[in-house]
Amino acid sequence: MSIEITVLGCGSASPTSYRNHTSQVVQVQERYFLIDCGEGAQIQLRKNKIRMQKIHAVFISHLHGDHYFGLPGLLSTFNLLGREKELAVYAPADLLNILKSIFNASNTYLCYKLNFHPLNFKYPVLLFQDKRVEVHSFPLRHSIDTCGFLVKEKIKPRKINRKAVDSYEVPMYELNKIKDGADYVNEDGVIVENTKLTFDPEPSLSYAYCSDTMYCPALCDFIKNSNLLYHEATFAKDCEALAKKTKHSTSEQAALIAKKADVKMLMLGHYSSRYTDLQLLLDEARLVFENTILADDGLKINL
Amino acid sequence: MSIEITVLGCGSASPTSYRNHTSQVVQVQERYFLIDCGEGAQIQLRKNKIRMQKIHAVFISHLHGDHYFGLPGLLSTFNLLGREKELAVYAPADLLNILKSIFNASNTYLCYKLNFHPLNFKYPVLLFQDKRVEVHSFPLRHSIDTCGFLVKEKIKPRKINRKAVDSYEVPMYELNKIKDGADYVNEDGVIVENTKLTFDPEPSLSYAYCSDTMYCPALCDFIKNSNLLYHEATFAKDCEALAKKTKHSTSEQAALIAKKADVKMLMLGHYSSRYTDLQLLLDEARLVFENTILADDGLKINL
Repeated sequence: MSIEITVLGCGSASPTSYRNHTSQVVQVQERYFLIDCGEGAQIQLRKNKIRMQKIHAVFISHLHGDHYFGLPGLLSTFNLLGREKELAVYAPADLLNILKSIFNASNTYLCYKLNFHPLNFKYPVLLFQDKRVEVHSFPLRHSIDTCGFLVKEKIKPRKINRKAVDSYEVPMYELNKIKDGADYVNEDGVIVENTKLTFDPEPSLSYAYCSDTMYCPALCDFIKNSNLLYHEATFAKDCEALAKKTKHSTSEQAALIAKKADVKMLMLGHYSSRYTDLQLLLDEARLVFENTILADDGLKINL
Repeated sequence: MSIEITVLGCGSASPTSYRNHTSQVVQVQERYFLIDCGEGAQIQLRKNKIRMQKIHAVFISHLHGDHYFGLPGLLSTFNLLGREKELAVYAPADLLNILKSIFNASNTYLCYKLNFHPLNFKYPVLLFQDKRVEVHSFPLRHSIDTCGFLVKEKIKPRKINRKAVDSYEVPMYELNKIKDGADYVNEDGVIVENTKLTFDPEPSLSYAYCSDTMYCPALCDFIKNSNLLYHEATFAKDCEALAKKTKHSTSEQAALIAKKADVKMLMLGHYSSRYTDLQLLLDEARLVFENTILADDGLKINL
């Protein structure tokens, strides 16, 4: 199992001809999550050969247009393609009325069920879970209500020690319980401890997404030890005052968060359109946190 | 003087990775009009090196998303760029509430004045005029209220016959009146007819934009003799029943309109995503109206 992130766009509010607005696909096995959906996301999905209909749920961090103006178009395209599967949308409450007014104006009735879940901006919330994966929201600090998201594999099943289960003659039908951590009790009532029958599971992966936010050390609690942190880095260090004023971050501040939260890797993004060359942002982050990379439209990362 | 059309997108509702949603820039001297504004139009403006801030007015034909989902983003970008110039938006009335709900949700106050003009879907209306150009709307027949637009140069000033004005000793300050068609009366009260002093003006150009519409011969009255007609051609002839059902046109029907309206040239567009190769659409149109071309993203036409 793995988590795969595809960056559909990594620009900030003012788009350039070479950077799309913010949007990412996070794939965990058969689950495809779309996180933010800037204008043009549906075309980016096509360019990146991700089948739109596979998207199971959409998470919108906040209602600045560069993070959701692609959503009405995507929802309309789902409709044209005859989507039948339900779609969950986790977003600020106001989005529901915006979508209603848009679809009313065009006499559009969606042919699929859209389950809208308003976000909470005060506390972290478990938004979604199935057998394999959880998605949590947590509050960020920006000029309007904004959430970050944490996509996290559940604790994986323990790995069967083939030799041991053979020697203790464990029947096949017991194996699932044993993978879940149960001891084995044989026909004579003898207890074989789980640790004798299994190895530790693969570590569970997690991906934290933080855009947009000002420098906010409090968010480290929510993203601690993540395998990958995406953190906005709208500005370089010389624009720190502007970052503070607009409630964005510098790349150095993103790196400070990565370091404090003890994550494995940091990905920068949401670059101001003033930067055509991003080396300065990368260099300033790496001085604080070495394992830093730059998001780029079309970049795929497999954790 | 001339009219220049830049096609920003020529796809229909379901976008492809190589065709953007409908949007065009029509330039008449220093006036830049944006007609429709599908998702991604602002990036297309950048790619086509058209300075956004030059756009004087926006005309939205109808409220299907592929014709306006790029507008909230464009208006937001004008704001980020500190636009001061007023912007006129001619669009179906419902758009105003949609924009208000979008900007309310993000606490956005536009730094420029947006003058919103609701369209009339019953009669042709002169929407805009200045010294050089007029823009008219006229009703189309589609599944929701939809307008076409006619961009038309005003009758141009007559051309001065240099030799004649010299020989009649016409003073300089009379020339503007003479360009406008006045006769010249000299100091002795002798009348010199205008036709002796001038040549006929250059013919006035016009551009008609019809998207989306079913086959509707009644619209020929509004677009008669245009130099260029853009007419939607969502389908080929074998999908005529589908065109009728969805209130779109085939390329042959677009050509029939071009022929009846006696226009000089026809440009097809708004192609269904089922067509990667558009030759069939072009061939079927040319059987009816020879001077037909295909719209393409990035195509520029100077009339």
